[in-house]
Parts: sequence; C-alpha cells; structure tokens
Amino acid sequence: MSTNVAVIGASMTQFGQREAWIQGLLAEAGAACLDDAGVAPDAVEHLYVSNMASGEFEGQTGVPNALAHDLDCLPAYTQRVDQTSSSGGAGMYAAWQSVASGASEMTLLVGGEKMTHRSTGEATDVIASLTHPVEYKHGVTLPSFAGLTARRYLDRYDAPRESLGKVAVKNHENGVDNPHAQFQKEVDLETVLESPIVADPLRLYDFCPITDGSAALMFCPESVAKEYTDEYALVSGVGGATDTHVVHERAEPTVMGGVVESGKEAYEMSGYGPEDIDVAELHDMFTILEFLQMEGLDFAEQGAAWELVEEGKTECDGELPINTSGGLKSKGHPLGASGVAQGYEIYKQVLGEAGPRQVDADVGLACNVGGFGNCVITTIMEAGA
Amino acid sequence: MSTNVAVIGASMTQFGQREAWIQGLLAEAGAACLDDAGVAPDAVEHLYVSNMASGEFEGQTGVPNALAHDLDCLPAYTQRVDQTSSSGGAGMYAAWQSVASGASEMTLLVGGEKMTHRSTGEATDVIASLTHPVEYKHGVTLPSFAGLTARRYLDRYDAPRESLGKVAVKNHENGVDNPHAQFQKEVDLETVLESPIVADPLRLYDFCPITDGSAALMFCPESVAKEYTDEYALVSGVGGATDTHVVHERAEPTVMGGVVESGKEAYEMSGYGPEDIDVAELHDMFTILEFLQMEGLDFAEQGAAWELVEEGKTECDGELPINTSGGLKSKGHPLGASGVAQGYEIYKQVLGEAGPRQVDADVGLACNVGGFGNCVITTIMEAGA
Repeated sequence: MSTNVAVIGASMTQFGQREAWIQGLLAEAGAACLDDAGVAPDAVEHLYVSNMASGEFEGQTGVPNALAHDLDCLPAYTQRVDQTSSSGGAGMYAAWQSVASGASEMTLLVGGEKMTHRSTGEATDVIASLTHPVEYKHGVTLPSFAGLTARRYLDRYDAPRESLGKVAVKNHENGVDNPHAQFQKEVDLETVLESPIVADPLRLYDFCPITDGSAALMFCPESVAKEYTDEYALVSGVGGATDTHVVHERAEPTVMGGVVESGKEAYEMSGYGPEDIDVAELHDMFTILEFLQMEGLDFAEQGAAWELVEEGKTECDGELPINTSGGLKSKGHPLGASGVAQGYEIYKQVLGEAGPRQVDADVGLACNVGGFGNCVITTIMEAGA
Repeated sequence: MSTNVAVIGASMTQFGQREAWIQGLLAEAGAACLDDAGVAPDAVEHLYVSNMASGEFEGQTGVPNALAHDLDCLPAYTQRVDQTSSSGGAGMYAAWQSVASGASEMTLLVGGEKMTHRSTGEATDVIASLTHPVEYKHGVTLPSFAGLTARRYLDRYDAPRESLGKVAVKNHENGVDNPHAQFQKEVDLETVLESPIVADPLRLYDFCPITDGSAALMFCPESVAKEYTDEYALVSGVGGATDTHVVHERAEPTVMGGVVESGKEAYEMSGYGPEDIDVAELHDMFTILEFLQMEGLDFAEQGAAWELVEEGKTECDGELPINTSGGLKSKGHPLGASGVAQGYEIYKQVLGEAGPRQVDADVGLACNVGGFGNCVITTIMEAGA
C-alpha cells in the first residue's frame, strides 16, 4: 500500500504571449505555488520541471537546476520530465511517484514552455520532431494527422461538421471566465466554420494557439498535507500508456489506444469509473481530440461523443462539464505547462475554488496527450477528507 | 517501508563512434537488456529513457515512445529523464521510484546519446547550454570551469600536477579490459602531461571524449526478481541533490555540494558508509572531478584524494578501486548513457560478473554528475540475498 499523495497548492501564470523567457516563467509559477501552499523553499525535497524543448526553443538546458537555484530550493533534487506535449501529465506522475515511493516528502512540480518568440512554422517543426522520421520527411505534422482523423471520424460515425465547431465554441465560452487564458473571448459557430482551412476539414478555430506559460502544483503525503491545510486534494488514480510511434500502424485512427489504456489504469487505481467523474480537462489541441478522449475514457460510446456535445452535456451546466478552464483551445498550449495546468483546474474544481468557472465536482479527471496519442497520462483527483 | 528494488539485467552497447542514430542505439541496448533479464517485452510496465539532447543533436524528440514501439513494449508507460550529463543517474532514480511506489512491477531504463556526428565545437555548445546564460555568453564552458578548479585544487592542497595525470593513466589502464570502452589502450604519464593544453593546467588527456552509446538496466521488486533469477542486485541507497546554477556563487569551488548531499542521502538510505564501499564508478568527465567526488563522498579527507591516487589505492588491486570500467575517460561519455553505464559496471561487479575487471566487491557506488556539479545522483548497489 503506497502513501496517499495529496496536492496542497497550485498556481499558473498568465498564458499567452509573454516577455519572460522560460526561466522567468517557471520561477513565476514556482514562487506562486510555494506561496499558495505555504511551503518554505527549503522544505522542497524534489523539484520536477515538465518541459519539452527549452533547448530547441531557446538554446537553454539544465532549467530544473537553474529553477531550484532561483527559488532558493537548493539542494533539492531536480530533474526534467519530457513526454513531448504530455510532459505536464508525466510530471504529475513523476511527482506522485516521488512521494508515493517515500523518496520525497515535499515535491514541487513546475511545467512551462516559451514558444511565441519562434514563428508558427518553427514551432510546428520542433513539435513535429516527435513524429516518426519517415512521416516527418513526408510533411505529416500533427495538424495533418488531426485533419485526416477528423475526416475519418465524421464519415465513419455520420457526425456533423458543426459538432467539432461546437467544441471550439464551448471552450472559448469557458475561457471567458478564466483570467489566465490566452483568449478570453467568445467565438460563434459561423466564425469557426468559416475560418481558414488548415487541414481539411479542420479550420483555424479547430486548433489551439502557440503559447507561453507555466503552471505548478505541490505534492506531499496526505499526513504531511494535514499539517499545512484542511483544504487539499488527493491524487486518487494515475495511469500512463503509449501507442505506436508510427501513426499509420494503428488499426483504427479514431481510437486512441493510449487514452484507453491510461484511463483504465487510472480508473482501476482510483476505484472510480467514468460515471463518477464530475468534471474533466481533456487535451483539445485539436477539436477532434476532445471526441477521441471522451470515447477512450468511456464518457461516451465509440462514435457517440459528438452527440453529447450537440446535446450540450459537456457545457459547464451539463452532466459532465469538459474543459471548464477553456481547454488548450482558448487557455493556450505551452507544451510542458499544459498537463500541469489541467491539474491546476481539477484541483481548483474539486476544492470548490474555481470562482466563476466552478461546477459541482467532487471528483475530476485530466487527460494529457503527447504527440498524436503517442503517449497519454490520465490523472484523477478528489477533495481530501 | 518502500518495496525493495532489484536489478535483474543489464546491457551496454559498444561505446565510441557509431553509425547508428539515437533510436538504433537505444533499441540495441534495450533489446539486449530484455534478453539478459529474460523478461518478455510485454512484461515491461514502465520504460524510462535517459537522454539529454536528442532534439538538439539530431532533431528527433519523442524517443521513449518510439523505443517502446521498437522494442514491442506497447502500451508501456514511457518518459524521458533529463538531468543533463547526469540523466543516466536520474534515470536510475526514476526507475527506482517507479518500482518503489508500486506504479510498475517491471521497469526498463535505457540511457543513450548520439554525439559524434556533430563537431567537437557543436557538441560543446550543446552541453554548455546547461550553464548560466551569463557565464555562457562569456565563453565559460565546462572545460574552462574544470581548468580553473584544477588550478585552485593544486594550489590550495599543494597537490602535484602528476596526480591528476595518474587518474587518466589508471582509467585508461582499466579500460583495456572493457570491450565496450571507446579507448582500449593504455597511456603513460608523459603522454598525458605533454598532451595539448585545453584549459590550463588541464590537457587533452584530462578530458573524456565525445561518444555515441547506450546502456540499459531492468528494475523490479525483489519479490518479482526472485521469480526470474537467483542472481540479482539490490538498490541499497539512492540520493540526488543540486548546487548553484551559477558556479561562481559557490563558497569553495573545490567542494561539490551536490556530491556531498547526494552521497549523504544514499549512505543514510542504505545504512552503509564510505568505509563499506568496495568499488566505485565516479564521473571523471575531467580528471579533477574524480578527486572532488572522492572527497565529497568521504572516501578521502578534503584535499587528500590526490594522495590516495599517488599511493595506488584506487587502482583495481587497491583498497578502493575507482572506475574499474575505465570511467568516462576511457570508456567514453555518451551523456544520457553514462550514468546507466556506471550502474551496469556496479551491477556486474557486485554480482561477480565483471570478467577481467572483477574486483572483490559486495557493495558498490556510482556517482553521476550533471553540469559542473549542478546536479548529482549517488546510487549504492549490493548483491541480492
């Protein structure tokens, strides 16, 4: 029986186009999280940094060590966690393991990425470096996989194109209430459906933006959490899994095996099932991904996620609110930060601290997707005792 | 009380200049480790890849997912562990945590780096990206820190320049018996002392080479290990720590705080002290680092490591053999692989499987250093029951 792992603090920076470079963004979120948790810097034993590509984007590596120095956490153990676009979720798993194993009694996780100083083409190229080199050489980047998969989904399940657009509309509406979101403005369905084509049938508003930002969470054993606060969350379940590196080797592109497997693990560990989840943050890098995760996590039957969206069931006042934070779509997607920011939202929701975005939630789930479902982490949290 | 964590298999590729790219090197070591451990690919639950810079060196990211695919380990959870030049040691810590926390019952760790296709200047620049940007802009790379520190050490402790040279001579001599080593040839003291100056007083033979290579270890609970083999090692202790990112902020450059702190943690966890260690692999990226680690780990008094070297006590037939593998100096230093290869050597030594390099060893220690002591992992292993 492992230690029960609690989360006792959370923070995130403003997401969007930021002047600060990676080190500054991480330090901003890290310091705010120390403050939120009421933890002294020298109490931090392990410090994990979720980051995909500070070397490629900025020519700076060794950022965890630099961050420990900046936050005055020396000689805390530090390490970078990289699982491409799901580095943040992987960081939550690493932080959980550090506490559950007894290696650390106070673990700070900070995720971040600085991207907007590079052109969209350059950023897309860095991200595409995670694909198989043969696919990459043929120009198949993540957006093109998304377009192909969306076409297949709409055809196979007889879903209307509008249902994808409604994901974007919903997440933008939610983002209006999130002061940290990159876009805090509504968009209407016509705007989405008439925006420029990027990868047919997907259009500009089906894609998340390129973003700078950072988010942080503080983990410790539940016994230690009680010394700090009465208001903490518990990590009830966590699971991680991979799918083929070569996307075209998958039997059915509309089924993300990594989502299915990581969800099963997280459900099994937590003792909860999909019917117990009150709120979820899904990795809507592309609108189509929200459908695939809803189905992979058993929130909907295969091919039926679009119906729940059409019925409004995933809106904030629906049966299962999805992406109350605005999702990657409107909040932004600073790669290494995104999974941690999902954790931030679930933490706030289960503690009843989500302000104008608050929904009725005891148990929440975050699903963070790396690559095009290449690797996936699912994390379930609930309010502590 | 955490699970006892065992190591049941190990492998390493030929180190040196290799044709294979990173993916091929990792797959070679990973497959050999599966074979050595007698573990079926689908039994692997977690797969960690220690790698500093596949994106910077080769434009390829997402290598853990690709490796899981190549090794037929899907849907194993995968993640990259980066702690710059100590990524391998950090990988051992991550693998230990994954098993000790109960998250995984079979964890494969593969470390690797592909570097020789880049020029020495380019490789040095990638590595230097871990230093503080202000230091970096002024041209202070790791070799220059090593030169400054060596000068300080020789002056402060009245140590002869020859003692540093003898570290190189010893490690080259050991490397002759390691078929995986990049250099399997002896060098004499005159050659070392007359080689070209790189960073005064250090000369070419005081530095490790640029290397391609990979190494792997298989971790599981001791209870599971017994189902596979009678010949396994136990991870007795592990500790990680950091020091300042800005090297000039350290009180005394000849004391590596990260070594001291990580060593203390590993000793405390294991219940062993420096006097119990029978064999050690130290991070001799520069000859001076072997002295600093010997002192930080309490194998010698502050300023006295050079005397042990002069007395031959760290040779294979001495009281405490250091770098029986040949060390980074002659075995080579493929960044992400090096810490794992240290683990490979300690595993082989404590099991009595080190062939012509075998020394009398029940308990061994590996110390893996990132940056210029910026982050350090110390791992202690012993033979299982």
